[in-house]
Amino acid sequence: MAIIILGTMAFDAIETPFGKTEKVIGGSATYAAYAASHLTHPLQQISIVGEDFPIQELTDLKNRGVQLDGVEIVNGKKSFFWSGKYHLDMNARDTLVTDLNVLADFNPKVPDSYQDADYLMLGNVMPSLQLSVIHQLKKRPKLVVMDTMNYWMETAMDDLKKVLKKVDVLMINDSEARQLSGDYSLVKSAKSILEMGPSYLVIKKGEHGALLFDKDSVFFAPALPLEDVFDPTGAGDTFAGGFIGHLAQTGDISFESMKTAIIYGSALASFCVEKFGPLMLKEIDNRDIQNRLDKFVQLVNFDLKF
Amino acid sequence: MAIIILGTMAFDAIETPFGKTEKVIGGSATYAAYAASHLTHPLQQISIVGEDFPIQELTDLKNRGVQLDGVEIVNGKKSFFWSGKYHLDMNARDTLVTDLNVLADFNPKVPDSYQDADYLMLGNVMPSLQLSVIHQLKKRPKLVVMDTMNYWMETAMDDLKKVLKKVDVLMINDSEARQLSGDYSLVKSAKSILEMGPSYLVIKKGEHGALLFDKDSVFFAPALPLEDVFDPTGAGDTFAGGFIGHLAQTGDISFESMKTAIIYGSALASFCVEKFGPLMLKEIDNRDIQNRLDKFVQLVNFDLKF
Repeated sequence: MAIIILGTMAFDAIETPFGKTEKVIGGSATYAAYAASHLTHPLQQISIVGEDFPIQELTDLKNRGVQLDGVEIVNGKKSFFWSGKYHLDMNARDTLVTDLNVLADFNPKVPDSYQDADYLMLGNVMPSLQLSVIHQLKKRPKLVVMDTMNYWMETAMDDLKKVLKKVDVLMINDSEARQLSGDYSLVKSAKSILEMGPSYLVIKKGEHGALLFDKDSVFFAPALPLEDVFDPTGAGDTFAGGFIGHLAQTGDISFESMKTAIIYGSALASFCVEKFGPLMLKEIDNRDIQNRLDKFVQLVNFDLKF
Repeated sequence: MAIIILGTMAFDAIETPFGKTEKVIGGSATYAAYAASHLTHPLQQISIVGEDFPIQELTDLKNRGVQLDGVEIVNGKKSFFWSGKYHLDMNARDTLVTDLNVLADFNPKVPDSYQDADYLMLGNVMPSLQLSVIHQLKKRPKLVVMDTMNYWMETAMDDLKKVLKKVDVLMINDSEARQLSGDYSLVKSAKSILEMGPSYLVIKKGEHGALLFDKDSVFFAPALPLEDVFDPTGAGDTFAGGFIGHLAQTGDISFESMKTAIIYGSALASFCVEKFGPLMLKEIDNRDIQNRLDKFVQLVNFDLKF
């Protein structure tokens, strides 16, 4: 079933303790689309790029079932660019450069051809843009998943709270959950945040895995222990793409199904971090994904005899 | 089956973001014994205390199947005392006071009545003392588990390496694993450390769970997400007691059994942190533990349909 993916398509320049790269393809919607494309189609992208964004990348996405009617290409301008440097603990990073470029004028338009989508992934962009996309949809999707970040909590909290009231799943990292709720305990954070609107909360903890909460239950999925985390950029967006991709693929949006969706998201994210940019997501096939899912089963499976 | 537990029996004064306590009962061997006492007996304690250590505590331990023939009581001297303050991220803490007191003269003696023990838990004490206990045993136990800490890596690495060659399981936290191996990646750390002697490595990550490695496999167990972690002191020792307690209870020391043992250790540790000192470990019963084990199953259980 169709998934609308709202987010950035951009360039990143990244430095990690294991290497450094010049401009590579990045952006939340790019990663999410490559991840979800392994599981379902069509994907209906809403984004904005400059004239410098490679045609080859757009073609690659199209060939993977990603519709680009909602991607505005602005001539004479450049794509969004982000540069950052990761610490040895890659859950922490410093932003070196943020060039908004075309993103400063982003005014997402939902094409008519997207109006029937059952799934909506609101990638991390300004909350008012997320809200605009929700309002443009004539039929409410079956499931709306939202990503956001601390920056919007500091600069656009009112809009962010409006979006929260309209989504089913919020997906943020642990420090963002603490900031949004004002609670240090993630269990308490989850309780407060679920009262702000969403029925489900996913807290991403990077190499420490992810938690899924609803009002009554909690589920935990570890990250796969890897020899090298080469570049964590895009891992959260890849996780989101795998998560919503699995839900759309099965059509099952129960808590049980979301647990499995988190394992899919984690498996795809574990590939993402192995190379700079979304390269690995383009290289892997279904068998690679199944093998990695098996590793998750082995990783957490235990036998309790009472 | 009998477990020998070597470690400290002591007093702690603790400050956490949620409260502060004057001297409470502490010590690695105390926590490990209370934890293991829920699963098996006899426990054969080797430790040293001053005349200030409460008789009531010794009686409580005895009543739970803990033999104290190996606990030296030194008149005219005080028990080991540690005081510390935890950060909001309770994986980090500052030591405020360390009064060795009787611990400065600790020269562990293995009583004859302990000679048949099948399990040996070497709590975190000076490596030469751990080595001394190993050498005093006429029959090598079926399983030797060792805890240690960064301090010994800095001050007694040669002895520590000797102990490593004689144990089956090493149990340390993530920063200690990084320090011991010189690798940041825990997967690489595990490979190096397993070459130093132990066949199994448990890496404790506090609120982020624990990893079990052998040469070929890795298993991950989360920590139970709790509303409040009141006081993490002793959680690692409680985990160790639950781990070896389950192995001794079942007599099965396979990798599969160790996975379950880690869940037992995690369940007991999740009680430990709910109150200052080992109080909760004395209050809970078998039903409480079973309920918590069920929570772990719910927490990590997912269904993967291919």
